[in-house]
Amino acid sequence: MSGLTVGVVGLGGMGGGMANRLLDLGHTVTVWNRSTDVAAPFVARGAKLAASPAEAAQAGVVITMVANDAALESVVTGPGGILEGIGGGVHMSMSTVSVGLVHTLAARHAAHGSDFVSAPVFGRPTAAASGKLWIMQSGPEAAKVRVRPVLEALSQTIHDIGLTPEAAAVGKIAGNFMIAAATEAMGEAFALLAKSGADARVWHEMISSTIFACPIYANYGRFILDKAFTPPGFKLTLGAKDIGLALAAGHDQQVPMPFANVLRDRFLTAQAQGRADLDWTSIALNALSDAGLPT
Amino acid sequence: MSGLTVGVVGLGGMGGGMANRLLDLGHTVTVWNRSTDVAAPFVARGAKLAASPAEAAQAGVVITMVANDAALESVVTGPGGILEGIGGGVHMSMSTVSVGLVHTLAARHAAHGSDFVSAPVFGRPTAAASGKLWIMQSGPEAAKVRVRPVLEALSQTIHDIGLTPEAAAVGKIAGNFMIAAATEAMGEAFALLAKSGADARVWHEMISSTIFACPIYANYGRFILDKAFTPPGFKLTLGAKDIGLALAAGHDQQVPMPFANVLRDRFLTAQAQGRADLDWTSIALNALSDAGLPT
Amino acid sequence: MSGLTVGVVGLGGMGGGMANRLLDLGHTVTVWNRSTDVAAPFVARGAKLAASPAEAAQAGVVITMVANDAALESVVTGPGGILEGIGGGVHMSMSTVSVGLVHTLAARHAAHGSDFVSAPVFGRPTAAASGKLWIMQSGPEAAKVRVRPVLEALSQTIHDIGLTPEAAAVGKIAGNFMIAAATEAMGEAFALLAKSGADARVWHEMISSTIFACPIYANYGRFILDKAFTPPGFKLTLGAKDIGLALAAGHDQQVPMPFANVLRDRFLTAQAQGRADLDWTSIALNALSDAGLPT
Amino acid sequence: MSGLTVGVVGLGGMGGGMANRLLDLGHTVTVWNRSTDVAAPFVARGAKLAASPAEAAQAGVVITMVANDAALESVVTGPGGILEGIGGGVHMSMSTVSVGLVHTLAARHAAHGSDFVSAPVFGRPTAAASGKLWIMQSGPEAAKVRVRPVLEALSQTIHDIGLTPEAAAVGKIAGNFMIAAATEAMGEAFALLAKSGADARVWHEMISSTIFACPIYANYGRFILDKAFTPPGFKLTLGAKDIGLALAAGHDQQVPMPFANVLRDRFLTAQAQGRADLDWTSIALNALSDAGLPT
Repeated sequence: MSGLTVGVVGLGGMGGGMANRLLDLGHTVTVWNRSTDVAAPFVARGAKLAASPAEAAQAGVVITMVANDAALESVVTGPGGILEGIGGGVHMSMSTVSVGLVHTLAARHAAHGSDFVSAPVFGRPTAAASGKLWIMQSGPEAAKVRVRPVLEALSQTIHDIGLTPEAAAVGKIAGNFMIAAATEAMGEAFALLAKSGADARVWHEMISSTIFACPIYANYGRFILDKAFTPPGFKLTLGAKDIGLALAAGHDQQVPMPFANVLRDRFLTAQAQGRADLDWTSIALNALSDAGLPT
Repeated sequence: MSGLTVGVVGLGGMGGGMANRLLDLGHTVTVWNRSTDVAAPFVARGAKLAASPAEAAQAGVVITMVANDAALESVVTGPGGILEGIGGGVHMSMSTVSVGLVHTLAARHAAHGSDFVSAPVFGRPTAAASGKLWIMQSGPEAAKVRVRPVLEALSQTIHDIGLTPEAAAVGKIAGNFMIAAATEAMGEAFALLAKSGADARVWHEMISSTIFACPIYANYGRFILDKAFTPPGFKLTLGAKDIGLALAAGHDQQVPMPFANVLRDRFLTAQAQGRADLDWTSIALNALSDAGLPT
Repeated sequence: MSGLTVGVVGLGGMGGGMANRLLDLGHTVTVWNRSTDVAAPFVARGAKLAASPAEAAQAGVVITMVANDAALESVVTGPGGILEGIGGGVHMSMSTVSVGLVHTLAARHAAHGSDFVSAPVFGRPTAAASGKLWIMQSGPEAAKVRVRPVLEALSQTIHDIGLTPEAAAVGKIAGNFMIAAATEAMGEAFALLAKSGADARVWHEMISSTIFACPIYANYGRFILDKAFTPPGFKLTLGAKDIGLALAAGHDQQVPMPFANVLRDRFLTAQAQGRADLDWTSIALNALSDAGLPT
Repeated sequence: MSGLTVGVVGLGGMGGGMANRLLDLGHTVTVWNRSTDVAAPFVARGAKLAASPAEAAQAGVVITMVANDAALESVVTGPGGILEGIGGGVHMSMSTVSVGLVHTLAARHAAHGSDFVSAPVFGRPTAAASGKLWIMQSGPEAAKVRVRPVLEALSQTIHDIGLTPEAAAVGKIAGNFMIAAATEAMGEAFALLAKSGADARVWHEMISSTIFACPIYANYGRFILDKAFTPPGFKLTLGAKDIGLALAAGHDQQVPMPFANVLRDRFLTAQAQGRADLDWTSIALNALSDAGLPT
């Protein structure tokens, strides 16, 4: 499919990768970014520069990929925000934000007559730039049909997880919780193995090539064993934020999550002890430290 | 390699599968089982029946695959036990037992002049019967060389995790801890998704085909979603035992394991509430129940 | 001391008790309550009825005792709020609210030229009505001097915990966390005793008359043993809110609180399973239920 | 009451204090201690020296106050043990030991025709020496009647918690769990207060003179604030042992204890990080350390 017209609000690593991917495929892309200079390379490649999120939203389908709840709220409901320009278009929120904000924005869009789809992604900036993201989406059927060609341009697989935008928002948060849980489990196991005289690398090679032969265990386990925490692939503070989102969602739905509690404490300790700027897999150091091992 | 001579003590699903595999390959197998009638089919296929573990140990390499610490201690140090017949042979312990007992038995063998190798396995009885186990081993080098042909007959891969028998014992326990942790993480995520109106099956298909594309997440997640807990593939009480072994090892080595603590409580609650006979993946029901969902 | 002039905003059980106490002592009291009819009995006893929190604040010292953060924010910064009438007076916040809101309001008052003192209380409505509260206060020295006569009228003891209003806010939250922790500890102990065939009542009489001879253990332990959870002395949902405040404060200050995490889950489970309207000591039922005991 | 005849096995701080108390009151006391020289001062004061626990048991009522399970098992069932000399007498076990061992010893005594009472104590050596202990007891009625005069000589209060010796054993363990839980709760609160700029000492004075006006909060809170951990009043390793006993009892009775799990980890971390020889209240340092505070 070609000839799509898409707005992209937020040109960081992920949003920028997606904008480039759409430009590579010859689509018409309007971009907006808080710092205008970040937009320059995209304009050089043929993107139109919007003066506001509202203007970017006139494309009919507008993607947001921004840092956090505050940023998303601002670009949607603030002055010059998406609601001012979207008309009957579709806003597709692709960053990891709170379920509560998704709920609020869905109501705002509904009251306004526009559509809102949640479509968070798994994958790194390189996957965004090459159309290899894994995407979870949810929202009203008609809106999902409208954004589908855009999602196909960006992803290897698309998973429809429900009829409310909240569904995909919680799905993404739950996914990041799972990753952090696997990280902590490896941290505890590595501490036990190390103090027991076992070769943790051989153990890791075994489980990550057999019962846990999948990217998270293979890659993240290696980061921990190598203590390869800097530069961070995903910053510890972002992981802390996502566990906070999981606990907030659990609070709102009355779902106790004891593993998430342990993770919350791991992230707090890591930050309190000065490891905020490392990769989030470094929360595994807590298990080592508690066991008296060097970190 | 053919022409091996091996004793097999314990002919349950796993031990029996291994004995059959060795018979299939034409090796000479001497078997012993507490209930003699269990041994009959193996004798019918050509195995020799030993009158005691001691007699089975005369094969030079004797495998034990028994239910728990008490059973292992009995077949090694009890009357007619392996120590009485092993001479300068090698005892290869393949079941999941405590690190403490492995430590004790290693000392007994060393004092006796025999060798002791720990070689616990991952895989189901069908994998044992078809030589497709994943095996972790540890122990003195010379002893590992002696048992290697036997392990090759039984496994797809062999992972050498250290020079003390304790190393592989703790490696196996840590592996089962990892599986239980993944189960609990899925339980918490499923509870959150269900109460948030998301489609947990789609979510599971996504993560188990992407970032967690590995057997434990794919298969165990499906068991939980289908509530397919009976007949048990691995009984809840056995999982409870293994988490107890992990915590005991952590205690002895002064390694705090907060995730293992959560799992301990999950297993206790499951047993206290009458789910002892279900598959161990049913510990995921606790997260649902705590969230007020039907179980 | 007589002849004080005080505004009281919020006339629920606690605020009303304090207003009555001040009237009993002959002070001049101006009252405001969201539902005006609640104010009538106080007016009948001689209180002046304010048309707004702003008007009540003209008394020079104005107490707020309201339900939660939203209510406090509204009576301070909303239309007709305290900031509009307080001039150079002192606002003394006595309810349990978030540290974050206290921080925000302190800044608003400072910008406005008024003073802000935090003075949360321990005690029940009967203690408020009889001047027997235990009060923790914090804030700028001069402001604390101004409110001191009012606090003396209301309390048996006053404890000055710091120079910022946040200090007493966190002190109150920490106190309620301690109470909930003692409750959970008793719940776990009672479950263990019950299943072990020990007489939990004798055990409770012993510890609460010796090493734990203090009101929380004596009274709350009896509530649990008697399952005397209704009518609630302090509703479970309020306890849940306070643990949430403790965890939020811990998050902001990067302080992991594993006991508070356990408590969070207990409150969530209690609410998810339909016990929201019971007394907060009923979180002890979770320990019984997890142990398979009747609740 | 005078003229009692009592054997005392184990003359450490607690057992020695009790022996002295009984001698002070003019009773006939036979003592035994593993290291004979420890017994000398008691013999100098008029005690008879027994050549074995069996001989001490001939007194008719024999108290054991020993270090741990292994020591108790040895003095009861080992060569020259209590069972060999007790005849139809009563063995009163007063130290903190596992419920499992109490169960085993009760069966041994029953088979032998002797009686077994569990009577663990709360209090320090000075309380033992002055007859001011708080004692919990359980066992068969007739046996409790026989030992009552001895208990009255040693205690300020006696609490009868059940008909099986296991009841008091678990009651004591549950009591120590409660103390450790209060310690941890204070540690978390102190960390939160410190990082929030509140005066933790004022806060502690307040709660320990009001809602928590009891010895554990008053004294242990002060130890923590003063970091007065050495010399230890009760060694951290002994606290670790007792939490282990609580978890073992919970395991056997299928009672999940999430607070005890947190405590287990605190003790393990403290030991792994080199604080084994401090007072057990020093587990509160973990909360400070996790929050990035100096310890």
